[in-house]
Amino acid sequence: MKVLSFGELLLRLAAPSYTRFLQKDSFDATFCGAEANVAVSLSLFGLESVFLTKLPENEIGVAAMRSLQYFGVNTECIVFGDGRMGLYYLEKGASQRPSKVIYDRKDSAVALSENADYNWDKLFEGVDWFHFTGITPALSDNLSVICKEACMAARKKGIMVSCDLNYRKKLWSTEKAKEVMSSLMKYVDVCIANEEDAEKVLGISPDDNNVNEARLNKSGYELTAKEICQKYGCKYVGITLRESYSASVNGWSCMLYDRDKSETVFSSKYDIQIIDRVGSGDSFTAGLIYGLINGKSNQETVEFAAAASCLKHSVEGDYNRVTVEEVESLIRNGGSGRVQR
Amino acid sequence: MKVLSFGELLLRLAAPSYTRFLQKDSFDATFCGAEANVAVSLSLFGLESVFLTKLPENEIGVAAMRSLQYFGVNTECIVFGDGRMGLYYLEKGASQRPSKVIYDRKDSAVALSENADYNWDKLFEGVDWFHFTGITPALSDNLSVICKEACMAARKKGIMVSCDLNYRKKLWSTEKAKEVMSSLMKYVDVCIANEEDAEKVLGISPDDNNVNEARLNKSGYELTAKEICQKYGCKYVGITLRESYSASVNGWSCMLYDRDKSETVFSSKYDIQIIDRVGSGDSFTAGLIYGLINGKSNQETVEFAAAASCLKHSVEGDYNRVTVEEVESLIRNGGSGRVQR
Amino acid sequence: MKVLSFGELLLRLAAPSYTRFLQKDSFDATFCGAEANVAVSLSLFGLESVFLTKLPENEIGVAAMRSLQYFGVNTECIVFGDGRMGLYYLEKGASQRPSKVIYDRKDSAVALSENADYNWDKLFEGVDWFHFTGITPALSDNLSVICKEACMAARKKGIMVSCDLNYRKKLWSTEKAKEVMSSLMKYVDVCIANEEDAEKVLGISPDDNNVNEARLNKSGYELTAKEICQKYGCKYVGITLRESYSASVNGWSCMLYDRDKSETVFSSKYDIQIIDRVGSGDSFTAGLIYGLINGKSNQETVEFAAAASCLKHSVEGDYNRVTVEEVESLIRNGGSGRVQR
Amino acid sequence: MKVLSFGELLLRLAAPSYTRFLQKDSFDATFCGAEANVAVSLSLFGLESVFLTKLPENEIGVAAMRSLQYFGVNTECIVFGDGRMGLYYLEKGASQRPSKVIYDRKDSAVALSENADYNWDKLFEGVDWFHFTGITPALSDNLSVICKEACMAARKKGIMVSCDLNYRKKLWSTEKAKEVMSSLMKYVDVCIANEEDAEKVLGISPDDNNVNEARLNKSGYELTAKEICQKYGCKYVGITLRESYSASVNGWSCMLYDRDKSETVFSSKYDIQIIDRVGSGDSFTAGLIYGLINGKSNQETVEFAAAASCLKHSVEGDYNRVTVEEVESLIRNGGSGRVQR
Amino acid sequence: MKVLSFGELLLRLAAPSYTRFLQKDSFDATFCGAEANVAVSLSLFGLESVFLTKLPENEIGVAAMRSLQYFGVNTECIVFGDGRMGLYYLEKGASQRPSKVIYDRKDSAVALSENADYNWDKLFEGVDWFHFTGITPALSDNLSVICKEACMAARKKGIMVSCDLNYRKKLWSTEKAKEVMSSLMKYVDVCIANEEDAEKVLGISPDDNNVNEARLNKSGYELTAKEICQKYGCKYVGITLRESYSASVNGWSCMLYDRDKSETVFSSKYDIQIIDRVGSGDSFTAGLIYGLINGKSNQETVEFAAAASCLKHSVEGDYNRVTVEEVESLIRNGGSGRVQR
Amino acid sequence: MKVLSFGELLLRLAAPSYTRFLQKDSFDATFCGAEANVAVSLSLFGLESVFLTKLPENEIGVAAMRSLQYFGVNTECIVFGDGRMGLYYLEKGASQRPSKVIYDRKDSAVALSENADYNWDKLFEGVDWFHFTGITPALSDNLSVICKEACMAARKKGIMVSCDLNYRKKLWSTEKAKEVMSSLMKYVDVCIANEEDAEKVLGISPDDNNVNEARLNKSGYELTAKEICQKYGCKYVGITLRESYSASVNGWSCMLYDRDKSETVFSSKYDIQIIDRVGSGDSFTAGLIYGLINGKSNQETVEFAAAASCLKHSVEGDYNRVTVEEVESLIRNGGSGRVQR
Repeated sequence: MKVLSFGELLLRLAAPSYTRFLQKDSFDATFCGAEANVAVSLSLFGLESVFLTKLPENEIGVAAMRSLQYFGVNTECIVFGDGRMGLYYLEKGASQRPSKVIYDRKDSAVALSENADYNWDKLFEGVDWFHFTGITPALSDNLSVICKEACMAARKKGIMVSCDLNYRKKLWSTEKAKEVMSSLMKYVDVCIANEEDAEKVLGISPDDNNVNEARLNKSGYELTAKEICQKYGCKYVGITLRESYSASVNGWSCMLYDRDKSETVFSSKYDIQIIDRVGSGDSFTAGLIYGLINGKSNQETVEFAAAASCLKHSVEGDYNRVTVEEVESLIRNGGSGRVQR
Repeated sequence: MKVLSFGELLLRLAAPSYTRFLQKDSFDATFCGAEANVAVSLSLFGLESVFLTKLPENEIGVAAMRSLQYFGVNTECIVFGDGRMGLYYLEKGASQRPSKVIYDRKDSAVALSENADYNWDKLFEGVDWFHFTGITPALSDNLSVICKEACMAARKKGIMVSCDLNYRKKLWSTEKAKEVMSSLMKYVDVCIANEEDAEKVLGISPDDNNVNEARLNKSGYELTAKEICQKYGCKYVGITLRESYSASVNGWSCMLYDRDKSETVFSSKYDIQIIDRVGSGDSFTAGLIYGLINGKSNQETVEFAAAASCLKHSVEGDYNRVTVEEVESLIRNGGSGRVQR
Repeated sequence: MKVLSFGELLLRLAAPSYTRFLQKDSFDATFCGAEANVAVSLSLFGLESVFLTKLPENEIGVAAMRSLQYFGVNTECIVFGDGRMGLYYLEKGASQRPSKVIYDRKDSAVALSENADYNWDKLFEGVDWFHFTGITPALSDNLSVICKEACMAARKKGIMVSCDLNYRKKLWSTEKAKEVMSSLMKYVDVCIANEEDAEKVLGISPDDNNVNEARLNKSGYELTAKEICQKYGCKYVGITLRESYSASVNGWSCMLYDRDKSETVFSSKYDIQIIDRVGSGDSFTAGLIYGLINGKSNQETVEFAAAASCLKHSVEGDYNRVTVEEVESLIRNGGSGRVQR
Repeated sequence: MKVLSFGELLLRLAAPSYTRFLQKDSFDATFCGAEANVAVSLSLFGLESVFLTKLPENEIGVAAMRSLQYFGVNTECIVFGDGRMGLYYLEKGASQRPSKVIYDRKDSAVALSENADYNWDKLFEGVDWFHFTGITPALSDNLSVICKEACMAARKKGIMVSCDLNYRKKLWSTEKAKEVMSSLMKYVDVCIANEEDAEKVLGISPDDNNVNEARLNKSGYELTAKEICQKYGCKYVGITLRESYSASVNGWSCMLYDRDKSETVFSSKYDIQIIDRVGSGDSFTAGLIYGLINGKSNQETVEFAAAASCLKHSVEGDYNRVTVEEVESLIRNGGSGRVQR
Repeated sequence: MKVLSFGELLLRLAAPSYTRFLQKDSFDATFCGAEANVAVSLSLFGLESVFLTKLPENEIGVAAMRSLQYFGVNTECIVFGDGRMGLYYLEKGASQRPSKVIYDRKDSAVALSENADYNWDKLFEGVDWFHFTGITPALSDNLSVICKEACMAARKKGIMVSCDLNYRKKLWSTEKAKEVMSSLMKYVDVCIANEEDAEKVLGISPDDNNVNEARLNKSGYELTAKEICQKYGCKYVGITLRESYSASVNGWSCMLYDRDKSETVFSSKYDIQIIDRVGSGDSFTAGLIYGLINGKSNQETVEFAAAASCLKHSVEGDYNRVTVEEVESLIRNGGSGRVQR
Repeated sequence: MKVLSFGELLLRLAAPSYTRFLQKDSFDATFCGAEANVAVSLSLFGLESVFLTKLPENEIGVAAMRSLQYFGVNTECIVFGDGRMGLYYLEKGASQRPSKVIYDRKDSAVALSENADYNWDKLFEGVDWFHFTGITPALSDNLSVICKEACMAARKKGIMVSCDLNYRKKLWSTEKAKEVMSSLMKYVDVCIANEEDAEKVLGISPDDNNVNEARLNKSGYELTAKEICQKYGCKYVGITLRESYSASVNGWSCMLYDRDKSETVFSSKYDIQIIDRVGSGDSFTAGLIYGLINGKSNQETVEFAAAASCLKHSVEGDYNRVTVEEVESLIRNGGSGRVQR
């Protein structure tokens, strides 16, 4: 099965360990991006994973592409051209001090994409699943249009389409997000959301959930999922449920709603000591896609996606460097962390 | 508002990460000192912060001074002369293994200070607040005398005086400490103490507090504060309440006693996963000074000071690299640690 | 008192911090080995500690030997010769992600040992205690024979013999282990085991213990210990009781059974935030040997061994870089982790 | 004497040591910029050094400002506002492999400057010297206009103006550069150029110099300098003469032409083993300004500037972390490099 | 054009910077191998490059494979199975101290290869060029046989065969080497040798060359090349000419002999300040293959190969991370090392 | 043969790589000391090497001792007591920028030594050679007296005494040095000096040597050596001849004068690219002692000492981590630096 993910590939400049920005005179430099994170996970899970983006035609752009090749992601259709390497600065939080992200992704090569850069008919040859997130159309008006073209081409070819709402308030307003995403959602078969997305992007909110207080309302999430499906015709809605005790410790579980079966399943809950939580939503999405593509039951799927994204919290960098075996071992044996020797 | 802090500026040589002394053949090298830590915090909080000390006339002394300039601290009146750079070795603890400090600060330039090095009348021009700690008079007999002169000059000019008792048993005996500090306390308007200081330095002890057992007796602390005010005429007493579960996890809250209002206020309590706890007392003091100078209520002041010092535990190095906005965000939003993007 | 420990000295190549294998292009490189870890602890505890092994005749082998000399271990009888440096790759786990060990110790110099390499009569001159673990006979058939010769020579000279079962499924089958270890156990005075060893090696199991579920059955362990003594004539059995909540947090306590006194003692239990758990069993063994050699009571001995091995979890590397003073301070003051300055 | 330097403050992301871009997953991160480098040097030389720029209103911008405060540069008039942090990627060359620079400075805060951001009349109060380089007007049309306003305001106040031509082909075409710089040059008292600038920017070229062949034509440089003075009315022209043997070894000397005295002086020549050559031109400029401001003779000035910039090649980062004493010691004692202890 | 390279993929554990083995407690860890180095170069030069080997079925083996995927090398036919990861320890020399290599590659997965692991008919489908070195048959008797099968299969299909003699005295005796290599040489079209190989492996020696004295005898090398062609029927012989002044500075040039044209060409000579010289012979080979495949003239080919391998000396690690553009730029512009910005 | 070296063991805090002091916020931390460097070399050369000093009774002192044990140096007679760890800050120079040393060794434990700390009769049991340097008596008046006692005890027992003049102007004046050293020199059998020592300490100077100009006058050195022997009765004088071209490149050769044979021998000269030159004089001394103890000829001795100290320049840290084999290989094969594999 072949999955094509489309979005930005970013350079992440992270202050080392738990230091504040520029406290040390170096940055840990890795590549990332919501859709690229999914592409890497899927490749590690054994699927044929294609990543599509536009990169600047210089050594930094080439290194970005290679960071995906390293994991076996197919990068053959990546476009090189003008524009800069999008990047973001990351300061990892600890205890009561939150993580901080400073975006510097304006005028990136992918944001400057033009329609002619992507020939969707050709790109979708042999593709079974198309994945993008709400970040991509937020990057430029051109990309909004390009995403719509991609969605339409996918629908025409009967390709499954998944979209993580991924609302980023620094990229666009809720108004703009609602307008653009509403027009894309009708092509989306599998919608992924975290706690804030549905409300900010689609105007659908689970009452009573105060995400900062680490109390979550399960039935509220179920209602949200149902409403998304009714409104946009999605088949599945996946939601991650994070309980934020501090920047160091979180509770984590996940939900999957299946419209056709009218079934809502919740995963086991994990209490996590966080090494790096950036990209955990993307690792959930990858787990969901893997489960659905492989015909797992909804419960199996949500457990797989939850375990995969639980493990992501223990892995440095945005990419979720874990295998199917490791995910299944966590599901089977629990997370007691005994040494494997 | 202009605050002058006076004390030693030290070089801190810390074993990297959680290694034991010299397990790796390098030291993390940063500058610090009880009063310098306060000066940096106050500068970051937007006050005009002056730091006064004497430094060795070599490249290490100059780098020490620059470490303060970096944060905008006014270093113009720092004296350079003979003597060495005081330093301390730090081994960070973890779990049941405590942190270790080895002092090597004898014969530092500041300890060799002579009265002629400091013209207090001139130094205090335009100054609103004078801060020092019990460490400074402990460094040498000369410094005891110099501190007294400073206190008297400050009183004469109507400058507020704050003093953190900061008892260090490796620097002087309790007897010497009691003798010297008693003669200085009558000039002190704001006295800061942690759990052990009051007893060791002033002979005033809250009964029943066993700091190692993580149980704290709030009313005992209140009595201690009252007694300090009665005995020495202080206007405020600030106390930090640490519950030491392990070297990795602590409970943290703070108390402020206002003699004139006869009011005792306690802050919220934070459960902290510790990155670096050295300097947390100083960050509390800075928060206290900031609150009092800005006319905050006692409750607001103690919450600000507690939140500032809570955040210090998540920051590497002695300096508390946090802003007023970050402190207020913790007070307002709690410490759930959600990523800010 | 002079203790001779015999076994392999390995190079440990650990992925830095919490990264996955080769995520960074470097390895932390330290030396280790179940028996070498014991030898280092004993030397740090002030005993005369001799380590015996065979090392490759190159710079890596020499550096391995020096890593022991650094701690004052007597390395004079180490043999140099053909064969490679045994090594293992370590990936440290975190939260729900377990640590991973990849052995690469085949054909190491010590595994290629021949009987003629060790003249036990001479080696045991002045020795009071001989220690080895189940790993050594597992390395090669020659070493099985050599261990037996060593045990017989020790018994003949009235030297106490301790053995940690240390079953490693990647080195031999349970069948082979049972066969070989059964023939050695009759020479063993002090047997050390963790949760899985007794069952896998000796076929003796405490019912109802599911080590992954963090519930432990104290009486089951006592029965196991008694059975070991009955079956093999051991005088003491020491057992470590780990409760694995996650790769980051464990509960830890220890048990000692004294056959002659028919006394079972349990240590205090520690809740540990783990820095590095590899070598904790060896640090327990060293504590046990130290207690027994110094004529401590059984309760004192097990508390010492438990505190020593509790501290090991907070120390990077396999070697337990702690002193008797530090162990006794933990027993006396508890693990509140207050800064020592 | 007070010098105001105006230009961009950049983040430099350098591949560690001699690795290629992203070969290691980190960047050394320091701040720099042609004019900021001059400002730091002048502050270290003991002059009152003011730096003016516009920075993004985030933690990266604040850290950039602090990197100057560290050296005592006056940053009080720095403007904070919209726009990004300009940056460049650096790969250090070695032997036959050249260093590489990838600019990513478009739409930086300073490039988005508007006239209203700078009130030159007020900024120039008490200022004796104004310095900028050809990079600043190259960043945006607004900045071209702003530079002209600054030049005119400086001329009106009788402030000396220095300008390093600093042609960067990735920022603008030679045509644009010629047009803009020609209109600015008439306000310039001291013009600094390296081998390629005069030709590319002003269309004036020393014949026969092939900079890649490490042969330099002294009289050609003199002619160039004279022509610049005739054409634009400059009083001084400073030129650096680099002989590039390889990326590791260079010859280095400097020239100063004094129009009024009609005097051309050349410095001693240094054979340099390069640690970091970026910023060497700026360190020459700072030396020149220091010499001229302090009334040194032309020969003394060019020797000072040459020695200062020679030392720059041995200092990591763009900033030239050397003092007047060190420069004078090199002039006096030569570069034999004996240990100073 | 598609080139298949066959050999071992090794883990290189290098002491950091210029430290001695284990002076620091870490190793820089990268992957390498004579044939893998060639495969990476060819992929970077834009050819379709396939690498074939056998790797251990664990995370280290997978990471090794990914290190090639990163550069776009086709790894699809790599076999995973039993055996260990071959490795070597490297200590980089400096000045008069030579670099040291300690092999630990016995019983690696590839050395344990069996004939059945490689189906040459299928592997060679679409392949134009086959490359191996004398190291591969030296690793095990099985590999000798396998190499011969590969050579015969290649000859049958009309595939060009290149072989670097690469004699390693720690892997086999000169007698064994002569015996095995003689039987392989008749299938070799392009033979690559350095100064010592021809004599040690084929018994052909250029008189009067004392490689330690940095004097080289050009005509001796030409005679050697001719003799190789006469004896074994090779079409081309490439030889690298290193003049070792010290571990830090070397002279470097190359020779190519073309039997059919009876033409001997020498490249320009480079004086190199060495960053990392390991792998320079392999980078020469890759340059040779690139030149011959692309129909360059002999002189162009040897210049390309010499420039490519000159640049290798400035690149950390065994892989030669340079592009065709960079090689051609060195040929065109010389190695003056001016910054490219 | 057993050699006892007596002096200070220091902590060296070096700015990493070629950075300036505190440019990075860490120090490389290693142990060193003129006499300790000799002791380590001798142990690596296979002699029984005893080191005597007094160290502070804390973890830093213990780590210092262990740094010697690592190399097999006998540390059993080291005294622990009051006083601090002496240290020095090192900034490594490059090209024209000289290295800098800042001493901070006042009041070190060894400087506070009292006569009672050293029982020379017992310490010298079985000792064949006693080594100290002019640094030790410079540290305190007590140490001057103690050195004299040691010298007298050694003479009484017929132990060879060697002394490196090692004048340090930051420790004492030339007057004090002359006075003290003159009284010690009459017990010295082997005197070691570098270019400046003889003049500064003994008032004996080779005319015409300008050490900064890299020209050396061989006959002047011979005269100096003769005069030392005549004046103080020494048997041997060893002198190092450094030609300082820059901080990166030096010429290096050595001289030995044998009074009884009236023979002067010079070593080969090495052109060295410097990694770390600190400790090179000590490595020469160790080579001299090794040669003389082993009855080598004067020429062999000076070649050995020169080659050993040549290699030191390529080794990081003060300790000369090289073996007899490596030294002899350099003598035999020259310093062409070919890879040893």
